Amino acid sequence: MNEIKKYIDDNLNRFLEELFGLIRIPSISSKSEHKDDMYRAAEYIKKALLDAGLDKAEVMETDGNPVTYGEKIIDKNLPTVLVYGHMDVMPAEPFELWNSPPFEPEIRDGKIYARGADDDKGQSFMHIKALELMNKLGMLTCNIKFMIEGEEEVGSPNLGKFCEQHKDLLKADVILVSDTGLIASEIPSITVGLRGLSFMEVEVTGPNKDLHSGIFGGAVANPANVLCKMLASLTDEKGRVTIPGFYDDVMEVSAEERKQMAKAPFDLEEYKKALDIKVESGEEGFSTNERTGIRPSLDINGIWGGYTGEGAKTVLPAKAFAKVSMRLVPNQDNIKISELFEKHFKAIAPESVKVKVTALHGGQGYVAPLDMPAYRAAEKAYNEVYNKMPIPVRSGGSIPIIATFEEVLGIKSILMGFGLEEDAIHSPNENYPVLNFTRGIESIVRFYQHFPEELNKK
Amino acid sequence: MNEIKKYIDDNLNRFLEELFGLIRIPSISSKSEHKDDMYRAAEYIKKALLDAGLDKAEVMETDGNPVTYGEKIIDKNLPTVLVYGHMDVMPAEPFELWNSPPFEPEIRDGKIYARGADDDKGQSFMHIKALELMNKLGMLTCNIKFMIEGEEEVGSPNLGKFCEQHKDLLKADVILVSDTGLIASEIPSITVGLRGLSFMEVEVTGPNKDLHSGIFGGAVANPANVLCKMLASLTDEKGRVTIPGFYDDVMEVSAEERKQMAKAPFDLEEYKKALDIKVESGEEGFSTNERTGIRPSLDINGIWGGYTGEGAKTVLPAKAFAKVSMRLVPNQDNIKISELFEKHFKAIAPESVKVKVTALHGGQGYVAPLDMPAYRAAEKAYNEVYNKMPIPVRSGGSIPIIATFEEVLGIKSILMGFGLEEDAIHSPNENYPVLNFTRGIESIVRFYQHFPEELNKK
Repeated sequence: MNEIKKYIDDNLNRFLEELFGLIRIPSISSKSEHKDDMYRAAEYIKKALLDAGLDKAEVMETDGNPVTYGEKIIDKNLPTVLVYGHMDVMPAEPFELWNSPPFEPEIRDGKIYARGADDDKGQSFMHIKALELMNKLGMLTCNIKFMIEGEEEVGSPNLGKFCEQHKDLLKADVILVSDTGLIASEIPSITVGLRGLSFMEVEVTGPNKDLHSGIFGGAVANPANVLCKMLASLTDEKGRVTIPGFYDDVMEVSAEERKQMAKAPFDLEEYKKALDIKVESGEEGFSTNERTGIRPSLDINGIWGGYTGEGAKTVLPAKAFAKVSMRLVPNQDNIKISELFEKHFKAIAPESVKVKVTALHGGQGYVAPLDMPAYRAAEKAYNEVYNKMPIPVRSGGSIPIIATFEEVLGIKSILMGFGLEEDAIHSPNENYPVLNFTRGIESIVRFYQHFPEELNKK
Repeated sequence: MNEIKKYIDDNLNRFLEELFGLIRIPSISSKSEHKDDMYRAAEYIKKALLDAGLDKAEVMETDGNPVTYGEKIIDKNLPTVLVYGHMDVMPAEPFELWNSPPFEPEIRDGKIYARGADDDKGQSFMHIKALELMNKLGMLTCNIKFMIEGEEEVGSPNLGKFCEQHKDLLKADVILVSDTGLIASEIPSITVGLRGLSFMEVEVTGPNKDLHSGIFGGAVANPANVLCKMLASLTDEKGRVTIPGFYDDVMEVSAEERKQMAKAPFDLEEYKKALDIKVESGEEGFSTNERTGIRPSLDINGIWGGYTGEGAKTVLPAKAFAKVSMRLVPNQDNIKISELFEKHFKAIAPESVKVKVTALHGGQGYVAPLDMPAYRAAEKAYNEVYNKMPIPVRSGGSIPIIATFEEVLGIKSILMGFGLEEDAIHSPNENYPVLNFTRGIESIVRFYQHFPEELNKK
């Protein structure tokens, strides 16, 4: 099968140029001023899909940003794979920390640097190029459908409805997704679990205007002081979330399963060194991988209030704000958790302030069984490319829509992600190694070669 | 003495136009990009002082922003009054909350709206116009010196040295300052106590870059979470500051004195209504006026970290920051308090983060005796203008340089301020009633008429 590698090598420069064209569109879904860019990205992908060999492709409306859908049906008796990915990206702030502009991709030391280089433009694009390769080399073994959306980074608020409206169109045997990572460059892994997410914004209001902190300080509740106290109380000294009922639905993982998980290679010293931290942190009684894989967490993603410029300003601010997200594990319902958060946050507010709580977005967790055909096909594909069997891992991240796919379409997903921890997704200097891009394409092509036979074994 | 009022009335429009010229210069001392504006303001004041009748005036260099100094020595045997004020202003953010641009003064409902309308351009300018009036009407009774500085809002870091270098030049019998307020428009008061200030900035660093809150959340200390916990712990449930040693030097006020203070008119219900708060807040066992007048406090003046834009960004920030100020009472030393803060803040930092603490600026508290000649002269002046004896009050605010004047120059200050609580100094829509401006000028003129006789009684 050396022809796979050869085709990738021969066409790599063009592949990258095409990917860069997509990256240059600043399709930031959380900012309304980029609405047009979402359409530009959707059209760009439509053209790329048609060029790669799909029979048809179109930009379809949702209640929010558009979805690019396309398909190639070669034989109704063959299995069908539905590729899911997303064209939207995170905001790029703080800009000053980027070594090259976030929307002008640049290759340095074998890595593509840009917002979306990995998450998820780079990873989604591997599927388009795998399609082109199979089409050109006559290696198509399955019917292929693509659904590339534009609201993943804001929690896919409209894709569930889109799936419901297009159940027939989206029928498939498996959903294939590259939006996760490998344990390390040479340690392949397949993500079999994802955390859910409940993302909240809170606003604490004290007096009706900013006050002079000298004249009023000590006599009027300062909403920034109050917000800190409220947020501080949300976790205890054991690293546990204090919201009543928060752990009620957490699926406890058996000692045996935890033993299996602990076999994944992990070097705590390297982990700490890479992050430049002295000690790790988190819920008592769990390892670092368990803390992100099988336990929920609560993080402040943003906090602001008062004067934040240069120098001193003796103001007692009228308002203080925070964005707080909770990562959830399978069986914790994100809507229930958002409600518990809101109820609790309002309950702990002192009488001296007013509190507003908004659920910004959320999604459910997900677990995939290791014996499903797609998992076995993926295992073989990785083994051929990396010469190593992949390790099943539970990721701390969330792809809220994966749980929705199962609920609405009744289809399991296989998460063949090729990102690395050091890719700095969601951060300045996001990057994606070209090697992971090419190996990703090869692994995907090989997955298609094995999937029909594994499905028949079922 | 109706001629005083007549002169003010006849010239009011010109007075205001001249003041507006000063206000239009955005002399924000905490922002380095406004350095040139500080010189423009200093020159503007120099010209105004010469126009008003000083013999000489000049813009003098300090290690920071310039000082405008000027004088009129009419007779060496007469008392000398040194007028102190400041030409620098606070930043105007958040701009969107202003109803008119902060540096384009506008009169609405009898009030001047602009940054610096009260603090302290409006109040300083009253002295220049009082000088003009006395000069024109032949009412000069004292030698007059002016020292208008440009760094009050950043803690007057260079004025102490300036005073030491110019002790002879600055010799005077009293320092006259308008940078404080009245209890209410019709309730005159004289500030006899000021709180000290210790203004700190803290930076908490977790990992060496922003992280994905899903992949790392729950396993790596989040500096925003940690900062909230640290800040929350700085005050206890009784509203007391928990920094060890913080209260050691607090001068306790006797029960008798507290009884006297309690006589000042104060309506807690109106206070809460004006601020739109349900309940007041603060240290247990003290009244609202005591909390700001005779007790120290700790306020977060600004807090920031992570993603603060529109929508959601699931980031675990690398850093979180806060500006924290402590208001101090007489006998608490601001340098000692800053050191105690730094030591404590570092001591409570968990091993999972790094902490940086910077003292941004500070100043000592101040108390003035009620039997000093200048106080008696001021009392008479207010009584003539307001038909009421002024009430001596302790302000919660800080004018750090007042304590320095006493230390370096050995001169007491008399704080004849005409601002009102509702002037919103340091806030959007800062304003100053024209009535307070004109009554201020009249009160100042009358102070000069009484001061020599009171000084002779000494």
